Amino acid sequence: MPSPIEFYFDFSSPYSYFGAEQIEPLATRYGRQVDFKPTLLGAVFRVSGQRPLTEIPIKGEYSRHDFARSARFAKLAFRMPDPFPISTVQAARACLVLQQERPDLATGFIHAAFRAYFAQGRNISEVEVLRQVLEESGANAGAVIEAAGQAQIKDRLKSAVEESIARGVFGAPFVFVDGEPFWGSDRLPQIERWLASGPF
Amino acid sequence: MPSPIEFYFDFSSPYSYFGAEQIEPLATRYGRQVDFKPTLLGAVFRVSGQRPLTEIPIKGEYSRHDFARSARFAKLAFRMPDPFPISTVQAARACLVLQQERPDLATGFIHAAFRAYFAQGRNISEVEVLRQVLEESGANAGAVIEAAGQAQIKDRLKSAVEESIARGVFGAPFVFVDGEPFWGSDRLPQIERWLASGPF
Repeated sequence: MPSPIEFYFDFSSPYSYFGAEQIEPLATRYGRQVDFKPTLLGAVFRVSGQRPLTEIPIKGEYSRHDFARSARFAKLAFRMPDPFPISTVQAARACLVLQQERPDLATGFIHAAFRAYFAQGRNISEVEVLRQVLEESGANAGAVIEAAGQAQIKDRLKSAVEESIARGVFGAPFVFVDGEPFWGSDRLPQIERWLASGPF
Repeated sequence: MPSPIEFYFDFSSPYSYFGAEQIEPLATRYGRQVDFKPTLLGAVFRVSGQRPLTEIPIKGEYSRHDFARSARFAKLAFRMPDPFPISTVQAARACLVLQQERPDLATGFIHAAFRAYFAQGRNISEVEVLRQVLEESGANAGAVIEAAGQAQIKDRLKSAVEESIARGVFGAPFVFVDGEPFWGSDRLPQIERWLASGPF
């Protein structure tokens, strides 16, 4: 049984959204599972001295244009959210709760949260919006949000972020296939080559 | 007659090398010419507050791995040059001289200089190496290097770099197709879509 594809993401990363939409069909074609791993780009960027793409002079302007065009290229619904970026701590914790308590709902929630923010313009950093997205995903929103506030889950997210940094994650999405690191949704073609025929 | 593809590059950028190797066959398939435009990433990075990829913590390590893997993916000869990055002012000036005086040799020189640095490990910032690469490209190396040191060419490169910055070039390769900006060799698939069927 081949190992699952590890997909590190942040809910406020447009390229993570594009990657999340495409990685599962790709994995399925090659008999792989996807292990979705939330991280926090804020913490990750502090380690490597980076900042959000849209805040970099000149590059920021281009990136907004590229988000929308890359969405059209991949035939994904997208509209630039405002505010951007947002805190994704609560959404990431809710994700960890579901992965622990209701793994059958977790991946559906991940997609729903990405689409809420990047396709529907809903600010998932607001607890009421997060609650709605959880309900729409079939979860008991109240219970998830309560669990997300407890120390065990806070610690788990902290550990998850630290683990991602320790593994060399410096941006998102960041994908490991058989331990091989691929950064960015741009690397899907290389990931496909790897899945199809192994190391190259 | 469709407008040429404008390809901004720096001779010290691996992704520019990968892009330069692939852009002409792509352009030819869609009846386009390529207008190769040297710029200097050092100057470009100062504007947007960036620094060479390999100097960014964590991301730098990954990028070296990605250069080599991306070369294999594209079936291009590559070995990580040392030193890296290098000053490309002299090579860029030589390129402008040829584009002005011997346009028939200019594109061949561009490919030869990229391959010298990224496939053969030859430091093209050294004048003797540059001289050899010019000779191998069929140019009168002495005349080109002399012309490259004159004020007219120095001014032309300065203007070329300023023009690239004014157009929003913040990295390399940076490609314009019908005025549409595409950053990075990763965008070749989107460029192909644009060439095949227009704006999307």
